[in-house]
Amino acid sequence: MTQQRIRGVLSPVVTPFNRDLSPDPQRFIAHCRWLLTQNCGLAVFGTNSEANSLSVNERIALLDALLAADIDPARMMPGTGCCALTDAVRLTEHAVKAGCAGVLMLPPFYYKDVSEDGLFRSFAEVVERVGDSRLRIYLYHIPPVAVVGITVKLVERLLKAYPSAIAGMKDSSGDWSNTESFLKAFGKSGFDVFPGSESFLLAAMRNGGAGCISATANVNPAAIDRLYREWQKADADMQQEALNVVRKTVGQYVMIPALKQVIAYYSDDAAWTAVRPPLTELNAMQVHNIIEGLKKLDFDMPGLNRTQAKAA
Amino acid sequence: MTQQRIRGVLSPVVTPFNRDLSPDPQRFIAHCRWLLTQNCGLAVFGTNSEANSLSVNERIALLDALLAADIDPARMMPGTGCCALTDAVRLTEHAVKAGCAGVLMLPPFYYKDVSEDGLFRSFAEVVERVGDSRLRIYLYHIPPVAVVGITVKLVERLLKAYPSAIAGMKDSSGDWSNTESFLKAFGKSGFDVFPGSESFLLAAMRNGGAGCISATANVNPAAIDRLYREWQKADADMQQEALNVVRKTVGQYVMIPALKQVIAYYSDDAAWTAVRPPLTELNAMQVHNIIEGLKKLDFDMPGLNRTQAKAA
Repeated sequence: MTQQRIRGVLSPVVTPFNRDLSPDPQRFIAHCRWLLTQNCGLAVFGTNSEANSLSVNERIALLDALLAADIDPARMMPGTGCCALTDAVRLTEHAVKAGCAGVLMLPPFYYKDVSEDGLFRSFAEVVERVGDSRLRIYLYHIPPVAVVGITVKLVERLLKAYPSAIAGMKDSSGDWSNTESFLKAFGKSGFDVFPGSESFLLAAMRNGGAGCISATANVNPAAIDRLYREWQKADADMQQEALNVVRKTVGQYVMIPALKQVIAYYSDDAAWTAVRPPLTELNAMQVHNIIEGLKKLDFDMPGLNRTQAKAA
Repeated sequence: MTQQRIRGVLSPVVTPFNRDLSPDPQRFIAHCRWLLTQNCGLAVFGTNSEANSLSVNERIALLDALLAADIDPARMMPGTGCCALTDAVRLTEHAVKAGCAGVLMLPPFYYKDVSEDGLFRSFAEVVERVGDSRLRIYLYHIPPVAVVGITVKLVERLLKAYPSAIAGMKDSSGDWSNTESFLKAFGKSGFDVFPGSESFLLAAMRNGGAGCISATANVNPAAIDRLYREWQKADADMQQEALNVVRKTVGQYVMIPALKQVIAYYSDDAAWTAVRPPLTELNAMQVHNIIEGLKKLDFDMPGLNRTQAKAA
C-alpha cells in the first residue's frame, strides 16, 4: 500500500451484471476508468456495489480484472468485511497483496447484539491473520443496513492495539452528530473519517474530514470532487446545495437500481439496469421521474458513453 | 431426497472449532452421531451452528466429512441461505446432490426493507438454478437475527410457483401468534411448520406442526423428542414445562457459547468451548451458574462422553 493515505471522493462502484446475473467485468472496468477520469477513487465492493450479493470468488475475479486492465490499486479501497472470518481474511489478504490503498471493512453482520469484545476480536483476527504492515483498514459503520455498528470505544481499542492498520472509517449512519463525534474523538490522530454521503461533505471538511465515500459519486463524481477541493471557497454552501438536489433526485426511490438506471440512460446502454435479487429494477415511471428530474437540473455525465463502455 | 418428509425434532448442530478456529470435523461427526442416537435430526449450518461465520468451502467440507463418515443425509437439513445468490445456489445444489432431506434457507439478509418481489425472486432463482426435482426448501424466518423475514404472502406466492420445492418453514420469531398464522394458512397443504424453539413444541403439535428445530436440542434432544412423540399423552403439559426449565437454564446468557459449554462439561472435553468471533466464550461464573442450574434439574447427556468424542 502507498505511504500517502487515500483521501477525497470515492465511489462504491456499482457492479454491472450480464443477462444471467453473472458480473460483467468489461462494463465494470469501463465505469472504473470513467470514475478515475473524474478524480473519483474506487471503493469497489461496497453496499452500493451489491458486494454482499457476490460470492468471494466473484469479488476476487472482479478485482483481478481491474488489475489486469491496469487500473491503479492505489486508487482502490475494496470492501472486504464479511460475516465469516475466513472470508474477510481471504478478501483482505488479496487486496493487500494487490497493493490496494486500503480496505473498507464491515463488521460481521449476521449476529446482532454482539459484544464490543466480540467485534474487537473480529477485526483483530483479520489484522493478525493478514499480518502485513501495508494493511490499512477503514471501518464501515452502516447501521441502517448492517445493524451491527462501530462505536467510538471500539475504535479507541482498535487504534490502541493496531495504530498502523486502523486507518479510518466510513460513517453511513446518515446522522451528522455521529460523524461529528468520531471527528472530534479521532480527527487529530490521523484516523480518517469519511461520511457515507456527499450531503455531509462540506460539514465534514470543515471539521477535519477526509472526503466522502458516496453512492451518488457513481453518477455525479466531478461536482462532488469540486466541493472536496473548493470547500473553503465562498460558494461552497451553494455547491453543497446543488449536490443535495442531485442526490435527492437520484435517491427518491431505491438507490442502487436508480444509480444503474442513470448510468444506463447516460451511456445509452440498457444492460446496466440489471440488479441481483433481493434487489429489483425500478419501474418505467420511476425511471422517467428520475431522468426528467435530472434533465431539469441540466445534469450530465460527460465522457460516459456507449462507445466507451463497448471499447473497454 | 427421500419421498418421506423429514419431521420431528432437529438440532441446529453446533460447530466445534480447533484452537486456530478452523472447523473440527471429528468432534462434529461425533456430536452428529450422538444426536442421531437420540432420534434428533441434523439441521447442520443453522444460526446456532455459526454457519454464517463459516465460508462456503468450510460448510461444504464439513458436509462432505459427515457423508464420508456414513451419516445418513436423509436425516439432514443443512442451512444454505446466504446473502449472495451464487453462494446459496452452490450450497443448495451440493446438499441436493448429497441426498439431504431438505435445506433450511435464510433469505438474503444484508439489504433491509427489500420488496416481496425481490425475496420471491431470490428463492425462485435458487429453485430454477438448482433445477432438481428432489429439492425441498424450508424457509427460515428469524427476524431477531436476519431482520429480513418471511411473510404469509411470500409463502403463498412461492407455494403457487413451486409446490414441490417449497416444503415448509422454520419460524424463529419467538412469537407464537406468528407461528399460528402460518399453521392456519398452510397447515393443511402439506407445508411443514417447525417452530424454532421447543418452547412452542406442544402448541405446534396441537395445531398441526411438524416438530421443532431448536438450539437446545443440541443438549436435551431425548426429552424434546419424547414430547414430540407423546404430545397427546396426559403429562404433555408437564413435559413441556420441564423442557422450558432446561431451556431457560441453558439460555440465560448467550445461547451458542452456552450450548458449547454444556457439551464441553458433559463430554469432559474443553475443546468444545471455542466460538468464532464476533461471538465470545462465556466467563467462568456464567458457566458455573448454568452447570449448577442443570445439576439441580438432574440434567444429563447420556451416551455423550470423552471416549466417544475421541473415538470418532
